[in-house]
Amino acid sequence: MKKITYVTGNWAKIASAKQYLEPLGYEIDNIKIETPEIQSDDVTEVAKYSAKWAANELNIPVIKNDTGFFIKHYNGFPGAYMKYMDETLKVDGLLKLMEGVEDRSAYLKETIAYCEPGGEPIVFEGKTEGTIAYESSGEYGWGIIDHVFIPKGENKTLGNFPDEERWNFWSVQAYLDLAKYLDDKDKTFMK
Amino acid sequence: MKKITYVTGNWAKIASAKQYLEPLGYEIDNIKIETPEIQSDDVTEVAKYSAKWAANELNIPVIKNDTGFFIKHYNGFPGAYMKYMDETLKVDGLLKLMEGVEDRSAYLKETIAYCEPGGEPIVFEGKTEGTIAYESSGEYGWGIIDHVFIPKGENKTLGNFPDEERWNFWSVQAYLDLAKYLDDKDKTFMK
Repeated sequence: MKKITYVTGNWAKIASAKQYLEPLGYEIDNIKIETPEIQSDDVTEVAKYSAKWAANELNIPVIKNDTGFFIKHYNGFPGAYMKYMDETLKVDGLLKLMEGVEDRSAYLKETIAYCEPGGEPIVFEGKTEGTIAYESSGEYGWGIIDHVFIPKGENKTLGNFPDEERWNFWSVQAYLDLAKYLDDKDKTFMK
Repeated sequence: MKKITYVTGNWAKIASAKQYLEPLGYEIDNIKIETPEIQSDDVTEVAKYSAKWAANELNIPVIKNDTGFFIKHYNGFPGAYMKYMDETLKVDGLLKLMEGVEDRSAYLKETIAYCEPGGEPIVFEGKTEGTIAYESSGEYGWGIIDHVFIPKGENKTLGNFPDEERWNFWSVQAYLDLAKYLDDKDKTFMK
């Protein structure tokens, strides 16, 4: 069985990867290691750099992901620095930033970089449009985005959806594209 | 004459380094290159990583600096991401964040990393305490911090001081310490 290592400690991400890749004959294991991250407001560059580093360091094919949150009115802030905003501004700071701002639209971007040892990283992306709520709500989730981001077509924040429903909002397209890439690659190889 | 290369394109930084290091017999030249930056909210780590990379890449002793801005109420935000905040939140976003916040204290931190090829970076720091103004003012400066940060003991923002006065507010201690380090090192070497 072909094996891919997901460089993450987040069980929901591992579950997502398994859901889409196991049916194609891939075994997904995972490892939680700190990878060097370049300072960039582009989540794609961050994921690519980390995936390449990990593939070479571990000498196995790896997946590395990075998630960004982009507020239109603030030119894409906080972007790749979502986690840092969580820890510093917190939910009060974010809601204060949005006071009196008419355009509350924002999007989540999930980037998955797949890399084989010695190779170049290949990137797959998922994007979820939505808006920022007027107050924090929801009992599920890991960060403040879960409690203030309302996906398009919904009337409540991500944090109101249990984990197994929630991650589908932003990661599906990226995993589907990765699965298609691996499937095509295997077929080409077998020809 | 001993030569140190400052990895920067900022003339004020070069002038600062010359002011403190030329009297010790050092010639300061400069080069403007992009160095890889790790993603860290710690300006010290960012400067160290870049200095080591540049010293090895150029094979000469180098100086690399990084500046951070830390707002107490927001747990040190924006820290090393000052430039990113400039480009996204802009001055309106920063002032909105401070609305109704009682503790307006903040500080600027200047980190200078000195590194010789094959060596480990050595770090020197300068810190300037102050507060965030209620409105933007001042005609000088490069970023929004210049227009909202009032150094302790002053009654106007950095942006009200011409360049040749302004940089003294945060960089003096770091350069003095670097000069002392180089001077001590030369004396030890001559013994």
